[in-house]
Amino acid sequence: MTRHLLDWIVAAGEDGPYGDAALLRSMVRFEVALAQAQARVGAIPQAAADAIAQHAFGLALDPAPLARAGAHAGTLVVPFVRALVAHIATHDESAARWVHHGATSQDVMDTALALCTRKALAALERSLSRSSRAAATLARSHPVAPMLARTLLQPAGVTTVGFKCAHWALSLARVRWRLLRTAQEALAVSLGGAAGNLAELGEHGPTVRAQMAQALELTDPGATWHSHREPWIALAADAGLACGAMAKVARDVALMAQAEVGEAREPQADGRGASSAMPSKRNPALTLRVLASTQPVPGMISGLLAGMVQEHERALGNWQAELAQHPQVFTHALAAAAALADLLEGVHIDVARCHANIEALYGTIFSERLAGLLLPVLGKEAAQATVADLCRDALDGGRHLRDVARERLSGDARLQPHLGGELDEVFDLERPVRLAAAQIEPLLAAAERPLP
Amino acid sequence: MTRHLLDWIVAAGEDGPYGDAALLRSMVRFEVALAQAQARVGAIPQAAADAIAQHAFGLALDPAPLARAGAHAGTLVVPFVRALVAHIATHDESAARWVHHGATSQDVMDTALALCTRKALAALERSLSRSSRAAATLARSHPVAPMLARTLLQPAGVTTVGFKCAHWALSLARVRWRLLRTAQEALAVSLGGAAGNLAELGEHGPTVRAQMAQALELTDPGATWHSHREPWIALAADAGLACGAMAKVARDVALMAQAEVGEAREPQADGRGASSAMPSKRNPALTLRVLASTQPVPGMISGLLAGMVQEHERALGNWQAELAQHPQVFTHALAAAAALADLLEGVHIDVARCHANIEALYGTIFSERLAGLLLPVLGKEAAQATVADLCRDALDGGRHLRDVARERLSGDARLQPHLGGELDEVFDLERPVRLAAAQIEPLLAAAERPLP
Amino acid sequence: MTRHLLDWIVAAGEDGPYGDAALLRSMVRFEVALAQAQARVGAIPQAAADAIAQHAFGLALDPAPLARAGAHAGTLVVPFVRALVAHIATHDESAARWVHHGATSQDVMDTALALCTRKALAALERSLSRSSRAAATLARSHPVAPMLARTLLQPAGVTTVGFKCAHWALSLARVRWRLLRTAQEALAVSLGGAAGNLAELGEHGPTVRAQMAQALELTDPGATWHSHREPWIALAADAGLACGAMAKVARDVALMAQAEVGEAREPQADGRGASSAMPSKRNPALTLRVLASTQPVPGMISGLLAGMVQEHERALGNWQAELAQHPQVFTHALAAAAALADLLEGVHIDVARCHANIEALYGTIFSERLAGLLLPVLGKEAAQATVADLCRDALDGGRHLRDVARERLSGDARLQPHLGGELDEVFDLERPVRLAAAQIEPLLAAAERPLP
Amino acid sequence: MTRHLLDWIVAAGEDGPYGDAALLRSMVRFEVALAQAQARVGAIPQAAADAIAQHAFGLALDPAPLARAGAHAGTLVVPFVRALVAHIATHDESAARWVHHGATSQDVMDTALALCTRKALAALERSLSRSSRAAATLARSHPVAPMLARTLLQPAGVTTVGFKCAHWALSLARVRWRLLRTAQEALAVSLGGAAGNLAELGEHGPTVRAQMAQALELTDPGATWHSHREPWIALAADAGLACGAMAKVARDVALMAQAEVGEAREPQADGRGASSAMPSKRNPALTLRVLASTQPVPGMISGLLAGMVQEHERALGNWQAELAQHPQVFTHALAAAAALADLLEGVHIDVARCHANIEALYGTIFSERLAGLLLPVLGKEAAQATVADLCRDALDGGRHLRDVARERLSGDARLQPHLGGELDEVFDLERPVRLAAAQIEPLLAAAERPLP
Repeated sequence: MTRHLLDWIVAAGEDGPYGDAALLRSMVRFEVALAQAQARVGAIPQAAADAIAQHAFGLALDPAPLARAGAHAGTLVVPFVRALVAHIATHDESAARWVHHGATSQDVMDTALALCTRKALAALERSLSRSSRAAATLARSHPVAPMLARTLLQPAGVTTVGFKCAHWALSLARVRWRLLRTAQEALAVSLGGAAGNLAELGEHGPTVRAQMAQALELTDPGATWHSHREPWIALAADAGLACGAMAKVARDVALMAQAEVGEAREPQADGRGASSAMPSKRNPALTLRVLASTQPVPGMISGLLAGMVQEHERALGNWQAELAQHPQVFTHALAAAAALADLLEGVHIDVARCHANIEALYGTIFSERLAGLLLPVLGKEAAQATVADLCRDALDGGRHLRDVARERLSGDARLQPHLGGELDEVFDLERPVRLAAAQIEPLLAAAERPLP
Repeated sequence: MTRHLLDWIVAAGEDGPYGDAALLRSMVRFEVALAQAQARVGAIPQAAADAIAQHAFGLALDPAPLARAGAHAGTLVVPFVRALVAHIATHDESAARWVHHGATSQDVMDTALALCTRKALAALERSLSRSSRAAATLARSHPVAPMLARTLLQPAGVTTVGFKCAHWALSLARVRWRLLRTAQEALAVSLGGAAGNLAELGEHGPTVRAQMAQALELTDPGATWHSHREPWIALAADAGLACGAMAKVARDVALMAQAEVGEAREPQADGRGASSAMPSKRNPALTLRVLASTQPVPGMISGLLAGMVQEHERALGNWQAELAQHPQVFTHALAAAAALADLLEGVHIDVARCHANIEALYGTIFSERLAGLLLPVLGKEAAQATVADLCRDALDGGRHLRDVARERLSGDARLQPHLGGELDEVFDLERPVRLAAAQIEPLLAAAERPLP
Repeated sequence: MTRHLLDWIVAAGEDGPYGDAALLRSMVRFEVALAQAQARVGAIPQAAADAIAQHAFGLALDPAPLARAGAHAGTLVVPFVRALVAHIATHDESAARWVHHGATSQDVMDTALALCTRKALAALERSLSRSSRAAATLARSHPVAPMLARTLLQPAGVTTVGFKCAHWALSLARVRWRLLRTAQEALAVSLGGAAGNLAELGEHGPTVRAQMAQALELTDPGATWHSHREPWIALAADAGLACGAMAKVARDVALMAQAEVGEAREPQADGRGASSAMPSKRNPALTLRVLASTQPVPGMISGLLAGMVQEHERALGNWQAELAQHPQVFTHALAAAAALADLLEGVHIDVARCHANIEALYGTIFSERLAGLLLPVLGKEAAQATVADLCRDALDGGRHLRDVARERLSGDARLQPHLGGELDEVFDLERPVRLAAAQIEPLLAAAERPLP
Repeated sequence: MTRHLLDWIVAAGEDGPYGDAALLRSMVRFEVALAQAQARVGAIPQAAADAIAQHAFGLALDPAPLARAGAHAGTLVVPFVRALVAHIATHDESAARWVHHGATSQDVMDTALALCTRKALAALERSLSRSSRAAATLARSHPVAPMLARTLLQPAGVTTVGFKCAHWALSLARVRWRLLRTAQEALAVSLGGAAGNLAELGEHGPTVRAQMAQALELTDPGATWHSHREPWIALAADAGLACGAMAKVARDVALMAQAEVGEAREPQADGRGASSAMPSKRNPALTLRVLASTQPVPGMISGLLAGMVQEHERALGNWQAELAQHPQVFTHALAAAAALADLLEGVHIDVARCHANIEALYGTIFSERLAGLLLPVLGKEAAQATVADLCRDALDGGRHLRDVARERLSGDARLQPHLGGELDEVFDLERPVRLAAAQIEPLLAAAERPLP
């Protein structure tokens, strides 16, 4: 089924890592590597392996009828191998019988997807790296630009643009790091044969598997993973974590980009985010793509985890479902990562507006510190009640809490001595800014730790 | 992205209800119906509406660049409308300005998907109906064929093939019924305009919506559903329930088809289920497709439910994700339903083997009834202990429990009178068979209740 | 396991509909209804049924050891029935043997949960009704109060508070309506016996089931639903839809309550939402509870849907998991519904701030209409470019777009005639307000349609 | 809410790692460690820290009202800290004001849950280790016991009990290994303060966090993880992977334990798996618990992943939902792991039945090898067709395929020379057994690799 249009959010073009051409080529690579490894241990004639290696990549297959034949057979590999055998036979009849020797259909598909996923992962890794570095650059550009910290979608104190962006950078670096580490185990060759125990390959089974791993630059799993899928599903779960981390950053940007907040603006490009109706409106098209691409991924992960219950030596249904869904996770993660990289490399942070949003709260953001100043004199409860009262006055009257406090509390002789420099210090924006800024470089250093 | 191969399990061909051609045609249908309805209320010139209606279906669009432009704009509709306007302008420049008048991009997409989904639903409904009728036929073919009831994957009593199949029929009928009922509300036109309140359409907004609904044979929702998605997601959830019901039946067949059980065999067709390695093996390709197609659906439903949290008048991310995932649910349900219909119309039930599997238990399946016979004399605990003991002897010795009981208990004078006809009655297979069979027609009558 | 603390968000107290006492009482009710129905058809002695009915509710069970015994047995019902038999025996030894006669453990649990869920549903329905009515009241209180419509988290036009709240009301009414309709089928008695075919009950099986349904005020399903769960899971899915609808409303409120937006404020109550640190901060505790309670529900629904694949006559694992998870869905929905009702009944909408947020955009929200005014003269592209330009000037200069337009365009003789009343009309707030307001009562009428 | 009964499958008793007492104690530990670390850097008086450390653990709190107050406040920590302050004040009024100094409620909860999860993880790790070792013991007990390999629930060749169990062992070892490695990063102290930037703690913030980490034996995350949750959710995802791996093994056992298969039997214990109806029936109670406990976990993981989209410095709803769901994952994994360990330590594998199930296929399991024998003479297609034909005869006639082949093919002079020893070799059970067995020790060595 061609689904260009409804896939527009994640569409990566026909040359994507899971495109038909890439998949078929990976399947052929499996068969070639299998033949060569078997020839090396003497299990099949070297001449046959050579013929297979020479001609297999010339196989031309039309995806649509192959998909139909696969659905009929219950596996793509039966019509694929039939076609490959016929193709090799046209070149070298005696070699044809050694095609796919000793392997089973799951060996082909699992290995081919590992090869496709290696490419997907490389692209994902690059985009995550771009995003993380872009966030680091933002952090270093605005280390001391004050902005509101917000918890439960309410103002919660003062932090800095740099501190926030440094956490974005670290988070994106962490998921990238984790993906690469898991990939070391997950990107493995699959070779088990019909019964999963390599019996058709004789004594040389494990050796053939090891040599194929080397030739294909995949890990030798040292075991059959036909129905034990943990490392493979772990990789998808890590992509799911990456999606979560990316969506969090995009969500922050989306909230900052609200008209009433105005702290962030998407990078503009010709026609990007054009509204179908309003000339003055720019839709946040990059944020949209990050959020829309990542949204279905948790559901996909739940399906993959549930599908790990694979019966005996190969599952009926759960494996075949996984085969289609696992690439979906990466396709979605890739789309999100590319959009996020574009977003973070171009996002405009309006530091003046960040500052203005603090000012608009008339100092009430420091109410905790004000209460702390009054506490030794008034006791905790009275201090808190007084401050809550002063905050109301400040917000209602549109006056700074410091001024309201100074005016309203000056009658209290006990408080008088604290209403000068100490009071000013309560509202000192520099202090939290300086403290936050001091943590940025260690955060970025952690974000830049060497790859596993 | 063309993904023929990795979509092989659910691939429905390019002409599927969500194929590019079908989607684009539905989008055009929206614009035509919009223009016509507005002309009728005098909001736009009738001549413009006529020109749009006459020429719009001639629009030819290449899906791939449209998808790319859509990703860039954040919506498919911006490039689509631009192309449609240009296309109409080549025929009638003055009409072109009335294209898409008063509508917003979500109106187009939601309505177009409702039109596509109506077709998908019709196909799904037909396949479910085929499956339900096939199960009913199986039930009527084997009403009194005894078979094991199994609970917790252990034998649990005697039932009949017909009783089991009648429940399959009822279950499949119920999900079909539910889908059709929900569709009455869910397949609705969408028209809200940029702000969701039809303001661009003036006083006639609700009337235009009602007329479009009539013209497109969709429901008039009487409201804007841009960010309130319950009926639409309810339809997907009902498709998810249908998937659950289908998978349950397929799972039963798969378990019955195990070599050691041997009670069911998939219908054979040339090459279907061919093994890549073993000539004598037939892979259960239809069961496989039902199970593999339905497996990811619960995860998709969770994504759709989570995505209902759509901000304000149109969501950022969650709606766009839904747009791609909602059709996936139906695509998967359709694939499963077609395979299940083929399966149930052709499955061979081996009633002799069903009976033999009961016999292989040497009467121990009636242990509860035997305990009931002994209970008045021995009391509950002794009765149960005695029976458990007799069962072990029967299974270990390969003798029928009735014979073991008669022999072992005849020494007990209190039990002697019960060891004749009463004992035979305990093991009377006819009784549960008759009782189960008597319930079949009422079950099938419920399965055949008129559509909503 | 007592989990008071970590359940704080959804904790409904020990007297909740799924509390131990309620569950055990429902289990006893099943056994009493079973005995009475069987006595009525002559399957067991009337005296036994009477004794069971008289004494069963006196059974006192300690939940903790019962749970442990249940885990050991693989079902709660084995130790429960053992205890009930012993308890009845202390009153009437001959009656004790008729306890649970002909039933299986799943019959007890499914029926008991249907009874508990009926109570949960009644409470859920009441809260949803409160919420829907509160939203309707808000709609009727502010029908013509202008506020921004927002799409993709960006301003997208002018609507009214009433229009928005009327959609909330309709959405909440719809999910309530749907729950009640599904409940008619889903709240069913379960009676199938060990093999699911009522064989232990003889000819009277279906009659006994029908009478039990009547006595317990549940539906007679006319079938065994041990492993066919569609109506039951459909009810949970509908609760999931309700959660989605509730979360959407809460999310809107949360966004409106941001300090920079300031359009909504949670109702304040003593100590509610108190911050652990900041005296001036009020955490949005009700919104929080709605969002936190509903968040895990989609995942639960996916688990329930996946769990529908129940083997043969009773499942191994999937049914038992469902048994624990189905009530969780309702427990979460209940908590959310109660909090949402409190929220909507008390939320303060700041209509002045709603208006001010429109004003802060300097008329650019009407850019589409301005472009429409210029279009006949300038053509589409130039009109849009001009307006985009004017918008920038307005926002940068802090002047109203109308004034900027009048000033900047007055030099163009072609436009001059349109820059008077026509231009004023473009920026007429009353028009969209009036059009939106006119739709409110029909929306509320739909929200108030009679129950199914 | 006490939910003993409906939690019976996962109930771990009140003393579980997430029980109220354990949670409260962990919360107190946080406050004590915070005070001590601050005293050490001079941020609060040492005497205050000492008083807090001395008295805090004496705090006695009733969970039920605390949960209610937490729901009211929107966080458990507000009433908790209030109670702790009051409690400390009864001992040392001046110390009381330093309780919770500089921290925020999320710091307390996240750290407390990390402490609870460390205990849960230790228990989970022990059970997984027991399971893995038990599977290894099974593998070493039956290395050369032949059994059917089954793919798509159909016979697919010959393997050995030991080979299958060695893969179980490796899989369980891998998920355990992965959990421990992820825990090194995930089990971290949380300290960020109200705005997440440690500003209330002055220059010493990072030092205080590092010292708390050391005191509590948790990792110092070097960052604030209030709204960046990847390592923490990764740990839950790894528990989800463990659940998938455990369920796969349990599912295999359940299928092997079917009456018609008879290859496995659950360990029997007094009353375990007792049927409520049938004396001869043993319900597979341990398998049931593994499958039922793990079934809802993928849905939980999807919820946790979706919940990673946490706004700004602390989320509204998603964090609070995570707080309740994260422990659920571990509670379910713990229950499954304990049951699986009991299962694998006691499961009886009936090797004679395993062998008999092969014999019952009359040699057709070797059809691929037979076709390989005929292929050089007959060519691929004819060989496959001939073998398929012979297989049908063998199964229909109940005769061994070897004998049927010898008899039916002896007329073909070309084949004659191959029908002696070569034909016997085709059906040689020893060969696949020997090849499979040879791989067991390397698999177990991989399973026993040192912990990370």
